[in-house]
Amino acid sequence: MSPQTPPLSRRLDGLQSSAIRDLLKLTARPDIISLAGGLPDEQFMPRDAIARAAESALADRTRLQYTESAGWGPLREVLAVRESKQLGRAVPMQEVFVTHGSQQALSLLGDVLLDPGALVVVEDPAYVGALQVFRAAGARIVAVPLDAEGMRIDALEELLARGERPALVHTVANFHNPRGVTLSPARRRALAALAERYGFWVVEDDPYGELWFDRPSPQSVASYSPNVIRLSSASKVLAPTLRVGWMIAPDVVCRSVELLKQGADLCGSALTQQIAADLLADEDWLGAHLDKVRGIYSERATALVSAVRTRFGDRVVSTDAAGGMFTWVDFTDGTDTADLLPRAVEHGVAYVPGSAFAVSQSYRNSMRLCFTTSEAATLEEAVDRLARAAAAG
Amino acid sequence: MSPQTPPLSRRLDGLQSSAIRDLLKLTARPDIISLAGGLPDEQFMPRDAIARAAESALADRTRLQYTESAGWGPLREVLAVRESKQLGRAVPMQEVFVTHGSQQALSLLGDVLLDPGALVVVEDPAYVGALQVFRAAGARIVAVPLDAEGMRIDALEELLARGERPALVHTVANFHNPRGVTLSPARRRALAALAERYGFWVVEDDPYGELWFDRPSPQSVASYSPNVIRLSSASKVLAPTLRVGWMIAPDVVCRSVELLKQGADLCGSALTQQIAADLLADEDWLGAHLDKVRGIYSERATALVSAVRTRFGDRVVSTDAAGGMFTWVDFTDGTDTADLLPRAVEHGVAYVPGSAFAVSQSYRNSMRLCFTTSEAATLEEAVDRLARAAAAG
Repeated sequence: MSPQTPPLSRRLDGLQSSAIRDLLKLTARPDIISLAGGLPDEQFMPRDAIARAAESALADRTRLQYTESAGWGPLREVLAVRESKQLGRAVPMQEVFVTHGSQQALSLLGDVLLDPGALVVVEDPAYVGALQVFRAAGARIVAVPLDAEGMRIDALEELLARGERPALVHTVANFHNPRGVTLSPARRRALAALAERYGFWVVEDDPYGELWFDRPSPQSVASYSPNVIRLSSASKVLAPTLRVGWMIAPDVVCRSVELLKQGADLCGSALTQQIAADLLADEDWLGAHLDKVRGIYSERATALVSAVRTRFGDRVVSTDAAGGMFTWVDFTDGTDTADLLPRAVEHGVAYVPGSAFAVSQSYRNSMRLCFTTSEAATLEEAVDRLARAAAAG
Repeated sequence: MSPQTPPLSRRLDGLQSSAIRDLLKLTARPDIISLAGGLPDEQFMPRDAIARAAESALADRTRLQYTESAGWGPLREVLAVRESKQLGRAVPMQEVFVTHGSQQALSLLGDVLLDPGALVVVEDPAYVGALQVFRAAGARIVAVPLDAEGMRIDALEELLARGERPALVHTVANFHNPRGVTLSPARRRALAALAERYGFWVVEDDPYGELWFDRPSPQSVASYSPNVIRLSSASKVLAPTLRVGWMIAPDVVCRSVELLKQGADLCGSALTQQIAADLLADEDWLGAHLDKVRGIYSERATALVSAVRTRFGDRVVSTDAAGGMFTWVDFTDGTDTADLLPRAVEHGVAYVPGSAFAVSQSYRNSMRLCFTTSEAATLEEAVDRLARAAAAG
């Protein structure tokens, strides 16, 4: 390069690559069983239904064209119907906004809702993609811990009582990533009430809500207050390749997001949006598809959690996986999961150390395990390897 | 809504919806011939080839999954081969980055290259999507005029001589949107030399370069200096629904863009990226496809420009459309194109007034006409309507 290579923005200072994504690159080796990913299993994605919908979409040439920034109209209609059921009220079209995965909704909301220096409350441990967005927006981030019933609302109340005034509270209320827990109905109501009392936004980030095992997820946090913006996605329900996420938010928020979406990438793909619309509209088919996926993930979750408990006994505490994609394991014997990782990879198994999700706490004795992409026997073998790696320490 | 509705970010102050997109919504009426759009004609998008490629892509279940943030590997390889020919050097994979249309490349570059208050030089009139990005990045925007040979490099030199130090210069070097002109080879060389001498980035935004009529577009500005970042897109060559754009940039820029892409939307669609890869890799097919599109657009451009000249005579000066999608018309008789627009719509024709693209100049007597989406006879009828509207003023 020339001696006069131009500089990059100072915005990049301190921004780091997602530790999870970098790790995933290393653990793509076929001899490693990776529990590190956060992927749904492509074997159970509805490939044939997607192919049929693609063919049907391409029969109409207008699907080749640019589409509306807010999303292809018929998909927004299908989502309005589905979300009306979720929220227990008639959700109008103008409150439905389609994004390029729900990560884009989060990113555009970061710009729409946050001024530099604004206070954002996140859960600890936190979804890393949310931290990236809030850091990029220049927010001040404060974490509230989680317990078995999800976000500790009492800790949020203490924070508010101390005079902290968040602009936004982010929660993964169903089957938390990475922590696996679900926010209880009483706390959902309490969180919504605080949002109205103190005038902050809640972003309810819900990619996993449909992946419940024994009983449906509790009523959406957004059903309790218009201050709650609800995000969801087709990635875990249908397939990530569609890049279809959506946001349910007040009209004023949707219109602001629309302005920024034009500058960000103009619009999404009418092709993949029609595929999503066709599949989400077919309730009988979708119900059967989701039942199948729930059954498989449930079986895998049970296999993983019981293998962990069998192999490690009282050296660990792990979440009861009731849905979603992850279980969270805390070592009670002081095992440092960041130190253990290279040995684990040597023994042919990978996971994400708790520190990758840490905000205020260190989570040095914790790890996130993903149970979606391996069969039960493979998960058991993975835990065997993990136990051997830990014993070799 | 509750009395405590939370506020939105101050970032939104002064951001406006794209005048073009808002106008497009109004002119979708079937009785209006719209020359206002900026769309390629879906009748000539390769629907059957896209359908075959989609079927082939979906035969592999991994195409349903998340893909790399930098783009699906085989697409990057195909692009590296194509761009190596464009740039006259071997472009390595790590300098190829796939984005969600080239608008996303522009948007991520805004964050990667610009600190708030940074100086950005644009062309006047300017591509509106670039202005949106640079405004959102908090840049100070200064415009340099265009003439028949593209950006007035002498005006840029004056600006530099006055001590202005841009972080970035943006140019649509081929078949400018909205101005229709192409940057001459001598000016390309001069622009690249200035970029190296003064240490600024040039963003060469090239969605239209393949849409030449009589002779290929000049050598890419990026072939003259590594300070030039080249953007292009499959939207005008294949179809916008693929949402495939790409950037050729130094490794350090690509890696920074990758960090931000993870937060922005994680990754693109492996499905649409394989479709693009298959079609762009098939050189014989692509050559024949592009020849057909060039022939059709060329015929339409000729029909539009000659109709304008016949109907309006010396009351207008219009660009010779040598490629791309637009011709630019300046009224020499003082006609105000913003005032004319409502009358034009009444007479059943729409266009974009020059003021929509204005940075420093007002362009009140100018308009942008798009020739791609109407047949020759329809374009002639549109100009008849325009002449009647102007006469009724």
